[in-house]
Amino acid sequence: MEPQLNEEIAKTAGSHDGPIETDAVIVGAGPCGLFQVFELGLLEIKCHIIDSLAYPGGQCIELYPDKPIYDIPAVPVCTGKELTDNLLKQIEPFGATFHLGQEVTTVQKQDDGRFYVETSKGTRFLTKTIFIAGGVGSFQPRMLKVEGLDAFNDKQVFYRVKNPAQFAGKNLVIVGGGDSALDWTLNFVQEGPNKAESVILIHRRDGFRAAPASVAKMKELCDAYEMQFIVGQITGIETSADGQTLSGVKVTGGDGVTRVVPMDMLLVFFGLSPKLGPIAEWGLALERKQIVVDTEKFQTSVPGIFAVGDVNTYPGKKKLILSGFHEAALAAFGAVPYIFPEKKVHLQYTTTSPKLHKVLGVETPVFD
Amino acid sequence: MEPQLNEEIAKTAGSHDGPIETDAVIVGAGPCGLFQVFELGLLEIKCHIIDSLAYPGGQCIELYPDKPIYDIPAVPVCTGKELTDNLLKQIEPFGATFHLGQEVTTVQKQDDGRFYVETSKGTRFLTKTIFIAGGVGSFQPRMLKVEGLDAFNDKQVFYRVKNPAQFAGKNLVIVGGGDSALDWTLNFVQEGPNKAESVILIHRRDGFRAAPASVAKMKELCDAYEMQFIVGQITGIETSADGQTLSGVKVTGGDGVTRVVPMDMLLVFFGLSPKLGPIAEWGLALERKQIVVDTEKFQTSVPGIFAVGDVNTYPGKKKLILSGFHEAALAAFGAVPYIFPEKKVHLQYTTTSPKLHKVLGVETPVFD
Repeated sequence: MEPQLNEEIAKTAGSHDGPIETDAVIVGAGPCGLFQVFELGLLEIKCHIIDSLAYPGGQCIELYPDKPIYDIPAVPVCTGKELTDNLLKQIEPFGATFHLGQEVTTVQKQDDGRFYVETSKGTRFLTKTIFIAGGVGSFQPRMLKVEGLDAFNDKQVFYRVKNPAQFAGKNLVIVGGGDSALDWTLNFVQEGPNKAESVILIHRRDGFRAAPASVAKMKELCDAYEMQFIVGQITGIETSADGQTLSGVKVTGGDGVTRVVPMDMLLVFFGLSPKLGPIAEWGLALERKQIVVDTEKFQTSVPGIFAVGDVNTYPGKKKLILSGFHEAALAAFGAVPYIFPEKKVHLQYTTTSPKLHKVLGVETPVFD
Repeated sequence: MEPQLNEEIAKTAGSHDGPIETDAVIVGAGPCGLFQVFELGLLEIKCHIIDSLAYPGGQCIELYPDKPIYDIPAVPVCTGKELTDNLLKQIEPFGATFHLGQEVTTVQKQDDGRFYVETSKGTRFLTKTIFIAGGVGSFQPRMLKVEGLDAFNDKQVFYRVKNPAQFAGKNLVIVGGGDSALDWTLNFVQEGPNKAESVILIHRRDGFRAAPASVAKMKELCDAYEMQFIVGQITGIETSADGQTLSGVKVTGGDGVTRVVPMDMLLVFFGLSPKLGPIAEWGLALERKQIVVDTEKFQTSVPGIFAVGDVNTYPGKKKLILSGFHEAALAAFGAVPYIFPEKKVHLQYTTTSPKLHKVLGVETPVFD
């Protein structure tokens, strides 16, 4: 399902005829941002939604489109893609305008209480409220910092596996001690379509953050001489004479001795690190790179700016998608006074409210 | 889908061999109670679940099994029955024991910190934690209080419509000013399989809590003489000579005049009123019949007793099923120190954690 891409219209309005005036801007089109559209929609609040990715779904699409998720309530199992598609279907009645492939670069409070928002593509808004649903910012892999290594990125050095087949039959060095490092190690060592010629796992200590079963399996494979595990850190590289090819890495062991390990491809799994980007500069109260919110409205330290999903923090916070859904619901109610100062909003139920049925574009059931 | 009914085993254990010893007892098998099983299960906490109804699903099954719900996140539409079935499927891996058709009658704190719980069927538990997921208690319709009326309940006086066909072709009086009263009025006046012989709507004032469109339609039907609307209150009844049949109701109008309105059937829609039952006597802090909880663990004023879903209250509370799901997740983490005092629990994700895959009984995906 494709979101309604009114980007052209929006850009035109933004660039030439002054900023787009709106009630709500949502920053982030991951599951929480998408559900924020729904909850605002039930309260008849129209919104625009911005995401730095070129498509909606956020982390679900970027990190695990095909992996099963089991803890969406009342959905025994679904993939990240299915979750996104279902949310896009659910928000269809509300016609939110998507502004994709762009980041928020400016947020300024105006004298009339509204916020001026500008994106990297020059889209401009004047909005009464902002909902930050930016996940943990954008993700970026933690890099292996060794001189000269970056030149081989995406050629012989990889921080993600997009196409496992490209590693088949190669001599691999894998670095890291978490689940990704162990899972990929087992995948490339064991029989299968992507079996490598050889695999050496390198980790700075003989202790892992990975599943014990995976660690045990890895050690079993080492005992059977099907792979090798070295405790150590990569401290340098070796290249071919012309400098065009990475031929090996220098590994300094726990004993202080440095050895050269030859290789074709290096895979580094040091985890992902969050980057909040410009959000960090908006003047919001932060705690360990998370935005501090209350638990009544999920409002930040700036009135009119709300934060939902993995980007926020409060006592008891767990980074669960289902918590983001709850936060989005309460944030929507919290926004009402900024948008309809006169209105008294009563909670209505989608099952019984003809008003909500009208908003949702469905028929009120006839009793028979 | 049928829950695992280990009731017999449980009762035997309870009645003859001392109380059932367990980590968690959930009171209420509505959607939040069912999802509480799931969240506890992910943390490897086994539980027993008690409900006064004879089947799981609570309000969803009791009040709207076939009506569509639109605001379950990532589920564009489902009925109360489908929601319940999906939740039962989702909690299947955890083998919770259901104790249905019984209410909690006793809760006593023991010297060892545990709670002694007993039900109306004599099932007894010693549990480390209690999760109250009792919805707004059990629901009961608000009654029309007129002398002698109760004797005709379920014969000529009805507070719910279970079988609309029994009202077809009859002379009906409908009382109330909300959506139920208006919806049923329109249903019985308009052409259709259940069309009544005549319909008179009575409400104490000429103003309604129902959808404006329904009110407009009703007034249109009055103008067309297809039904009648009377502003007034029912103050008495008239019966047949032998007292066996209700023949009419006395209606006192705004003008103070009382008229007799003849009728075959009386339908009263004054809404449902919550009754907390014995929960109110457990010594928990209450606020307007709701149980006060914190928003970090959704714990009540009694440590070890948590409350989730429509039964609780906190700043910002909205009675939404999706909020109950969030509350259940955080309550499960809140319970860990009572059950595993030594354990440090890290949040793991169902998508990536082999440990959670084991608990869920699913395979960890192989990368290929």
